[in-house]
Amino acid sequence: MEDFERRIRDSFTRQGMMKTLGAELIAVRNGATEISLSSSPSLTQQHGFVHAGAVTTILDSACGYAALTLAPPGLEVLTVEFKVNFLSPAVGDKFVARAQVKRAGKVLSVCTADLFVLHSGGEKLVATMLATMMFVPLTV
Amino acid sequence: MEDFERRIRDSFTRQGMMKTLGAELIAVRNGATEISLSSSPSLTQQHGFVHAGAVTTILDSACGYAALTLAPPGLEVLTVEFKVNFLSPAVGDKFVARAQVKRAGKVLSVCTADLFVLHSGGEKLVATMLATMMFVPLTV
Amino acid sequence: MEDFERRIRDSFTRQGMMKTLGAELIAVRNGATEISLSSSPSLTQQHGFVHAGAVTTILDSACGYAALTLAPPGLEVLTVEFKVNFLSPAVGDKFVARAQVKRAGKVLSVCTADLFVLHSGGEKLVATMLATMMFVPLTV
Amino acid sequence: MEDFERRIRDSFTRQGMMKTLGAELIAVRNGATEISLSSSPSLTQQHGFVHAGAVTTILDSACGYAALTLAPPGLEVLTVEFKVNFLSPAVGDKFVARAQVKRAGKVLSVCTADLFVLHSGGEKLVATMLATMMFVPLTV
Repeated sequence: MEDFERRIRDSFTRQGMMKTLGAELIAVRNGATEISLSSSPSLTQQHGFVHAGAVTTILDSACGYAALTLAPPGLEVLTVEFKVNFLSPAVGDKFVARAQVKRAGKVLSVCTADLFVLHSGGEKLVATMLATMMFVPLTV
Repeated sequence: MEDFERRIRDSFTRQGMMKTLGAELIAVRNGATEISLSSSPSLTQQHGFVHAGAVTTILDSACGYAALTLAPPGLEVLTVEFKVNFLSPAVGDKFVARAQVKRAGKVLSVCTADLFVLHSGGEKLVATMLATMMFVPLTV
Repeated sequence: MEDFERRIRDSFTRQGMMKTLGAELIAVRNGATEISLSSSPSLTQQHGFVHAGAVTTILDSACGYAALTLAPPGLEVLTVEFKVNFLSPAVGDKFVARAQVKRAGKVLSVCTADLFVLHSGGEKLVATMLATMMFVPLTV
Repeated sequence: MEDFERRIRDSFTRQGMMKTLGAELIAVRNGATEISLSSSPSLTQQHGFVHAGAVTTILDSACGYAALTLAPPGLEVLTVEFKVNFLSPAVGDKFVARAQVKRAGKVLSVCTADLFVLHSGGEKLVATMLATMMFVPLTV
């Protein structure tokens, strides 16, 4: 396992929110990550779909960790901002978010991520994120 | 209680995700809502702040319900897209999101929402959302 | 030439703004377009780079026309909203925007577009857009 | 005239793009600016409305200069990213964009701006921007 993967896996397990959602970090590569999410009644909006906020949370974590794979030593990542488009209702049992760094800067990184629902026959795009992440010397 | 308030309070209680976050719908007015959130270890990111995704979830629900207060009869609201800027770390015990409709259209509504952390001395802006909501005849 | 290409080329020539910028529509395919822009003192911001607004205008037209290639008969396209990230200064002589439809719906389409500066040695990403377009029966 | 106002008025006159659009800087205050735009055939999209890109250009300049009023000495402003929602067609003779800083940070500032069309009877909201600006030591 690469150093950055160990660092990211440690960080992921410290996120109470990822535990609450039941999210799993399934892949960490240079500049890219994948996180999966299973449907649950605890994650629904009023029509029984997975809540746009849960979808966004997974996309945000995937983008943040994609940026972190390219972080200079000693720096952490904070989310500056993101935009998400919801393309089809989040209906299904299993979802996967795939994030990649689109441009890595010294201070800011721009990342994109797509969230898919997995069917027997393949997968369908549910939502897409365009995000700005910032490297910061976190001393908290 | 106005009809639209009853409708929105019913809808809110059907959101598993709001229960999971421990969110409370504290105000519903014509074109505006307020939702509160309390800090919890189940909502944190890796540095112990409230996760950007939890913040976004509250902002999204607040915007969606603000739009729903102005929905024509028989129509529901889905999130088309949103953008969130994170202005300061979500550190604190209690947060409140305040949403309002900026423009109500026949099909699309544009809403804004701010999330504040509440201190003894006042409140501080944590995040701001600009969102597009769509009225749809939901028959699910 | 396909019908949709003729329609889009006609529309492009009616855009005073494209003439003002000196933009050229260089490719129209099913669900995708390319527009080029040449640097000019009339398009600069205060440091002599091409203005973020000029970059955005080209990206917006490219996205709108990409959506229009898939429009049902009789419908036009209006921009609902977009987000743009600026990844490197718009410095250079020649730029090209490439747009594609990410999801085509009955009412809304989601498009992405990248703008590159062209060098002798290749090209470099300057800006990226994520946009929502709407089909409307324009009778103006 | 305050120092920051002089600095911003000098910068504005160096923007070829503002001249091309015929934009005027009508107010500069601490953390806020106003820019006006007049309709012209050179700024239209295919239906004769003012192009979304022209609207965005004015909003972007207004936000950038609002951020610049609060810039530390020696620093300039670059646009990191923005999102714009288009709320009604840009039809009319005269438009005004009003921008304000929502949060001024050491590195990043978040700004909002609204663009209105002016009628005899008042004004109507046409578009709204939420933008991230960055202070940089520009040595170009």
